[in-house]
Amino acid sequence: MTIMAFYGSIRDNGNSERLADIALQDLEVTKVFLKDYHIPPISDWNQAKPLHAEKDDYPSLIRKQMLADIILFVTPVYWYGLSSLLKLYIDRWSETLRDPSLPDFKEKMKGKEVHLITVGGDYPYVKALPMIQQMQFICDFLQMTFGSYIIGKGDKKGEVLTDKNALHAAGNLNKYFKSQLQKA
Amino acid sequence: MTIMAFYGSIRDNGNSERLADIALQDLEVTKVFLKDYHIPPISDWNQAKPLHAEKDDYPSLIRKQMLADIILFVTPVYWYGLSSLLKLYIDRWSETLRDPSLPDFKEKMKGKEVHLITVGGDYPYVKALPMIQQMQFICDFLQMTFGSYIIGKGDKKGEVLTDKNALHAAGNLNKYFKSQLQKA
Amino acid sequence: MTIMAFYGSIRDNGNSERLADIALQDLEVTKVFLKDYHIPPISDWNQAKPLHAEKDDYPSLIRKQMLADIILFVTPVYWYGLSSLLKLYIDRWSETLRDPSLPDFKEKMKGKEVHLITVGGDYPYVKALPMIQQMQFICDFLQMTFGSYIIGKGDKKGEVLTDKNALHAAGNLNKYFKSQLQKA
Amino acid sequence: MTIMAFYGSIRDNGNSERLADIALQDLEVTKVFLKDYHIPPISDWNQAKPLHAEKDDYPSLIRKQMLADIILFVTPVYWYGLSSLLKLYIDRWSETLRDPSLPDFKEKMKGKEVHLITVGGDYPYVKALPMIQQMQFICDFLQMTFGSYIIGKGDKKGEVLTDKNALHAAGNLNKYFKSQLQKA
Repeated sequence: MTIMAFYGSIRDNGNSERLADIALQDLEVTKVFLKDYHIPPISDWNQAKPLHAEKDDYPSLIRKQMLADIILFVTPVYWYGLSSLLKLYIDRWSETLRDPSLPDFKEKMKGKEVHLITVGGDYPYVKALPMIQQMQFICDFLQMTFGSYIIGKGDKKGEVLTDKNALHAAGNLNKYFKSQLQKA
Repeated sequence: MTIMAFYGSIRDNGNSERLADIALQDLEVTKVFLKDYHIPPISDWNQAKPLHAEKDDYPSLIRKQMLADIILFVTPVYWYGLSSLLKLYIDRWSETLRDPSLPDFKEKMKGKEVHLITVGGDYPYVKALPMIQQMQFICDFLQMTFGSYIIGKGDKKGEVLTDKNALHAAGNLNKYFKSQLQKA
Repeated sequence: MTIMAFYGSIRDNGNSERLADIALQDLEVTKVFLKDYHIPPISDWNQAKPLHAEKDDYPSLIRKQMLADIILFVTPVYWYGLSSLLKLYIDRWSETLRDPSLPDFKEKMKGKEVHLITVGGDYPYVKALPMIQQMQFICDFLQMTFGSYIIGKGDKKGEVLTDKNALHAAGNLNKYFKSQLQKA
Repeated sequence: MTIMAFYGSIRDNGNSERLADIALQDLEVTKVFLKDYHIPPISDWNQAKPLHAEKDDYPSLIRKQMLADIILFVTPVYWYGLSSLLKLYIDRWSETLRDPSLPDFKEKMKGKEVHLITVGGDYPYVKALPMIQQMQFICDFLQMTFGSYIIGKGDKKGEVLTDKNALHAAGNLNKYFKSQLQKA
């Protein structure tokens, strides 16, 4: 049973990361801070030409993701949606769906458990809901289970630590992750 | 009265572009195909260091956008949301909000009219709705008017041209744009 | 191939009815104006007592509905949702799900096609979207197909007749209904 | 500082009521179990005829509501929306908006604080979101503040008491209500 966490923030120690720290406490997790990777935009997948001449960290990341059992997305609410760093990473999945070297991508993703932790400053409990609904559709498409989400409120650094409901939910998610790891 | 259109697709002549062609027929429009521009990810806006050493097309685009009266976003539905190319462009607005060289960004955006054309293959009439709701929040934040949106259905190239309702709505949007330009 | 239309408005000839008239032109349709029926609130379905001593038009309506192939819901946007008349009719389905005299309710509903026509006065293109999303979940639960929806704008009587996109979509829905009836 | 709670369930001691009990513990609250009141459907508000000849509990309820500072809606998720009992109560507000004997309805509602507690059995964390979005629009229309919502999971009687996040959030809401009452 392995957990892989993808972070969409462009900040270090931002609010979404802080909240995820609670959910991941004392757990062995592969953490991917997307800002530290070089991921070029998707290419036109209908064209036969070589896709990315430039450095591209995506292929190794997606291979690791395919081996994880639980995927945790951690993203600030940027403009009422997933951060573009995280959205780009997900958009690249469209390439993998057509990648002959990874023919079992869809099969491998099926049944994985997805969790989402997000923090926003502008009434996120309502204004992040489209992001939640989008994530459900993403999970449906790949037949993944959308296990849970936590929406926290925070603008200034560390402010999410005053959102008691979010902290409590993150603590419960931590217990859940631990119970899953013990089962395995 | 000027119209500026931003295209989020990574394809040439994709379905969303085809639908937008109808809405923009016989109009003078500044078209920005985001895939042809180099837009680096947002940087941590709380850090004082110089932001982008690398080539960055964003600054000139945002300056043009501030002069437009109507903004048209044209994007495929990628993973049930805005394409990451377009989302990145919008995420960069967060930098502009803090850019001392553009102190009137918010003031200039206020009152602009935003329209959205999007095409998806997987029941987009329902599954693109979170994107519409997100766009409303984006417009609310900058006090822009969300004038209209068109959701078309299409997967293979040109398939959207069989979506009669979408074609008709694009035709009506074209008439509307023309009437606005004549007023001005 | 039979069509059954349920109207949730409390007005005669209101905007949603006017828009539905176009979609149903020259078609044989069973029209149910819910305001003309007496439908008592749902009862506690966990209690064994006789449910409705008072007059109740629901049982005969639900039996007719089970025979229809296509269900069209026509409702104004009241307080950003289905009218309570229509919502009550749907809530009563929970009783039918437990009604031993109709053991095949779920089986009969499966595969039916649902369409929704709604008209609202306060930016319904965005503010009626939660209603659309709700209807999708309703259809999913009973494994019905959510065929299409039309959102029209109108406040004063007849105002929807100026919403060109909605009129056009209603015309196309009419053509679709006719083609379905011919197939059968 | 007064709190008024409206219950939309047709059951006694259902899950949503149990969750609300925690939020309202040790507080003086006017509780309205809508199933115990007789509220006829809305009438056509454009007609001059006398509205409700039959018994109608609505007028006295709405007068009490206008005096409350905080409104708590407590409803099961019925068919992915507000219960029809509660939706009917809200639909009747349209009459009050035109009621010459209550000319200050809108003014009195402005600034009130609304909270929502809902419990559903079918993945409510995602499938109740349209209800949350609808409630936001309702609050916006009357310029009320949508203070908070709690979504609990529960199907069988009492099952919500195993939803730790919901229980915790209800406990925090209780603390918040108490702090507000002390302020006043």
